[in-house]
Amino acid sequence: MAVMFSLEGYKGVPKTVEEAFEQVVLANRILGNEGVLDAFGHVSVRHPKKPGIFLQSCSLGPELVTKKDILEIDVDGNVVTKTDMKPYGERIIHAAIFKARPDVNAVFHGHPHSVIPFTCTGTPIRPIVHFGCMFYDGMNIYDDYDVSSGMLIASPEEGERVARVLGDKRVLLMRGHGCVVVGASTASMVMAAIYLRDSAAIQYQAMQMGQPKYLSYEEARQAAKIMGSALALERAWTYWVGRAKKAMPDLR
Amino acid sequence: MAVMFSLEGYKGVPKTVEEAFEQVVLANRILGNEGVLDAFGHVSVRHPKKPGIFLQSCSLGPELVTKKDILEIDVDGNVVTKTDMKPYGERIIHAAIFKARPDVNAVFHGHPHSVIPFTCTGTPIRPIVHFGCMFYDGMNIYDDYDVSSGMLIASPEEGERVARVLGDKRVLLMRGHGCVVVGASTASMVMAAIYLRDSAAIQYQAMQMGQPKYLSYEEARQAAKIMGSALALERAWTYWVGRAKKAMPDLR
Amino acid sequence: MAVMFSLEGYKGVPKTVEEAFEQVVLANRILGNEGVLDAFGHVSVRHPKKPGIFLQSCSLGPELVTKKDILEIDVDGNVVTKTDMKPYGERIIHAAIFKARPDVNAVFHGHPHSVIPFTCTGTPIRPIVHFGCMFYDGMNIYDDYDVSSGMLIASPEEGERVARVLGDKRVLLMRGHGCVVVGASTASMVMAAIYLRDSAAIQYQAMQMGQPKYLSYEEARQAAKIMGSALALERAWTYWVGRAKKAMPDLR
Amino acid sequence: MAVMFSLEGYKGVPKTVEEAFEQVVLANRILGNEGVLDAFGHVSVRHPKKPGIFLQSCSLGPELVTKKDILEIDVDGNVVTKTDMKPYGERIIHAAIFKARPDVNAVFHGHPHSVIPFTCTGTPIRPIVHFGCMFYDGMNIYDDYDVSSGMLIASPEEGERVARVLGDKRVLLMRGHGCVVVGASTASMVMAAIYLRDSAAIQYQAMQMGQPKYLSYEEARQAAKIMGSALALERAWTYWVGRAKKAMPDLR
Repeated sequence: MAVMFSLEGYKGVPKTVEEAFEQVVLANRILGNEGVLDAFGHVSVRHPKKPGIFLQSCSLGPELVTKKDILEIDVDGNVVTKTDMKPYGERIIHAAIFKARPDVNAVFHGHPHSVIPFTCTGTPIRPIVHFGCMFYDGMNIYDDYDVSSGMLIASPEEGERVARVLGDKRVLLMRGHGCVVVGASTASMVMAAIYLRDSAAIQYQAMQMGQPKYLSYEEARQAAKIMGSALALERAWTYWVGRAKKAMPDLR
Repeated sequence: MAVMFSLEGYKGVPKTVEEAFEQVVLANRILGNEGVLDAFGHVSVRHPKKPGIFLQSCSLGPELVTKKDILEIDVDGNVVTKTDMKPYGERIIHAAIFKARPDVNAVFHGHPHSVIPFTCTGTPIRPIVHFGCMFYDGMNIYDDYDVSSGMLIASPEEGERVARVLGDKRVLLMRGHGCVVVGASTASMVMAAIYLRDSAAIQYQAMQMGQPKYLSYEEARQAAKIMGSALALERAWTYWVGRAKKAMPDLR
Repeated sequence: MAVMFSLEGYKGVPKTVEEAFEQVVLANRILGNEGVLDAFGHVSVRHPKKPGIFLQSCSLGPELVTKKDILEIDVDGNVVTKTDMKPYGERIIHAAIFKARPDVNAVFHGHPHSVIPFTCTGTPIRPIVHFGCMFYDGMNIYDDYDVSSGMLIASPEEGERVARVLGDKRVLLMRGHGCVVVGASTASMVMAAIYLRDSAAIQYQAMQMGQPKYLSYEEARQAAKIMGSALALERAWTYWVGRAKKAMPDLR
Repeated sequence: MAVMFSLEGYKGVPKTVEEAFEQVVLANRILGNEGVLDAFGHVSVRHPKKPGIFLQSCSLGPELVTKKDILEIDVDGNVVTKTDMKPYGERIIHAAIFKARPDVNAVFHGHPHSVIPFTCTGTPIRPIVHFGCMFYDGMNIYDDYDVSSGMLIASPEEGERVARVLGDKRVLLMRGHGCVVVGASTASMVMAAIYLRDSAAIQYQAMQMGQPKYLSYEEARQAAKIMGSALALERAWTYWVGRAKKAMPDLR
């Protein structure tokens, strides 16, 4: 199984519900600010006290999410919070993964442009640079859509299929749609989402130039330990939060 | 005919003239802010009370458009507003389409860079990702220019030809020039313009990598229903308006 | 000879020296703001009263240029202004062109990244989209460097060679270096510099996709009349100035 | 050996320790602001009074570095400053180079995306445009990793190997990781880092178009003298500082 990490706070299971809510807001804002999410796509964080519940924004563009937009949802996809706010249609992706993967505390689903060509040419994204190391264990490609669902994952059955094809990996590519990225912590999920996007762009160019030499399994596995360390996660998280706060005055 | 939608407000026929003016301003600002329009290109919205009239800015870069710059123009291209302000030379594209297509309430014409290589290599842009689904019914390519018109569409006859080649599609590619995108609502037109630009960039890379698997006709048709739903249009519109307002203080 | 235009103010020969100084500042700021110039590259405008003199900033990054940085230089490259400010080493390019081309009132020299691959693969940039029409008459490629000059044009003899290879065209590509773009007016020069950069990026992608259909000579020649009209120049100039003023508070 | 320069201040060895600290801050901020460094990567400047010591930020994203984050480190990689702040794990790259290369006063290590495909396809970046001239003497590629180090350079032995493969060049590509760029001055190091990133992007496109004509050895060597002159370094540095100050209010 892919190396993941159990650290305190945003680097692992948040200690308080308040902290978890803050992580959901920051993960949305960071990924919006860095251009990994646009109007669509979403993230979620497992509830720190109730493992059968996760936290996710209501149906809203990630850059706009605030604490009061966050819903509690159970791992069958039912909204637990008493509210009129509408949840994301695809919350079932998150639900099914939290159900199947107790090691996962944060989930990303989005459509970074650089990733799409890989999904529809059946090309896994491989570790081509050390910051893509977290994908050393490979990734699967989902292509088992209900035609009637319009490429979106909405039914519990399809959610379960998605979780099954993800298996024990960090990433699932979804043909003609996007990707799922999971993490043991919010910071680890955010880092993997950003570096998946960047790795795809780099691998595309390298493949155009010839036959790139990828990181070996062992090189990447060792690098994943370092990139997933508390020190590296903290350095990256602090940087991304700093940029988001500069761009979004309401976060300060 | 391509799936389109008749919704209230910006998601369909605006209820009031005031609302229609606001939509023209916002569509211009959004498309300027998102980099889909630059100094050139233009949008239009059908008048909510007089179907033979549409609203469009005078000759001005889209990022700069305010309510007082908007003209009423009839479907033969005559400026109805009594004013000295100069209309766009290519308003005839909009006029001819509003005349030929009663289902259309909003029109985009622009020159997104990623789209041009498709126009001049005769390559239709296909649904390669779910947010490109609205092009499931295909698109035509216009290449029947009056040489003397300098690639611009200025005469009623050429406007009619453009509308004829567009047919009942959502998009017309124009060789060596750009594209036309239509919608049943302002939000639907804006969404299709942005996602055409993005789909082109993604398809380019996928074609360089090999033979991409596109969405099937049925996959894309079903996805178009979801992406064109009131919920999806509202989420995207709110996001784009939020970004435009952040970048353009005078909109607040 | 390439179609150019003689219009009033920034669209042609400025009426006053004050106006000419302002054009030099705005052209520098626009091209910096639009990413066509960075720390290096420069523009110049012919003196409206003394045709043997042109105006150009002292050695400074274009984004930083103000009126008090502008020098008067003669068409042999001598700085006429009494000052300690250092001129650009490559002012001789401008001098030699103003000397050889009485139809030219503004000159650009820069290194837009998208243009460089064309210079060093010997590929002219052709009109592939209507806004690239101004290059309908073709362009030459300079590759007759003094080896000892380090790819920069510094001697009067090499300046003369550059002007000779430019001939009566709008653009000169310079192998392994960049390009020269000329205009009858400041606005026309700025427009051609921006659209050369954009045309190169589009042509690159189109050539990767296959054999693009370029604009015919006559299509492009007719389009050049429209894009070079006072109306089009004014629309584009107003847009670029608006963007520069938004980004650079000291311009307001 | 590659042409480098010994100039005053940021253009060479800083005169005072205060000045050296300021250079470390500015180099970090410029390279963050220009997108050459992100959360990771680092720069260093040799101590102006103690040649066996260099200055480098503690473990922090470059955009965030201030004077109080800077550590003194010796050329064996030991932190000399009495502090709890953690140094970068890869400071040994800098230490080993300062030890081996008395001509070097500033070192960059980072992972610009455009450079990575060259590292993993074994393709040196060559002078393809005059501002890439400083690489005229060639560059080596490091691929002698300790598998257990996860692609990062952490041990003194591996630091020594990196310095040995760098040899007397300006640049070392590191397979699947990034690059090292050195300079006789802070400004020269910053310029080479930015132009390496840009040269890679340009060479990639030129190679896709065909067989580019690179600068000859002598053309590039002569150009390197001009680009490395005090005048050119000052012009570029002033430009980059100006942009960083505009983007980062706390620098003003």
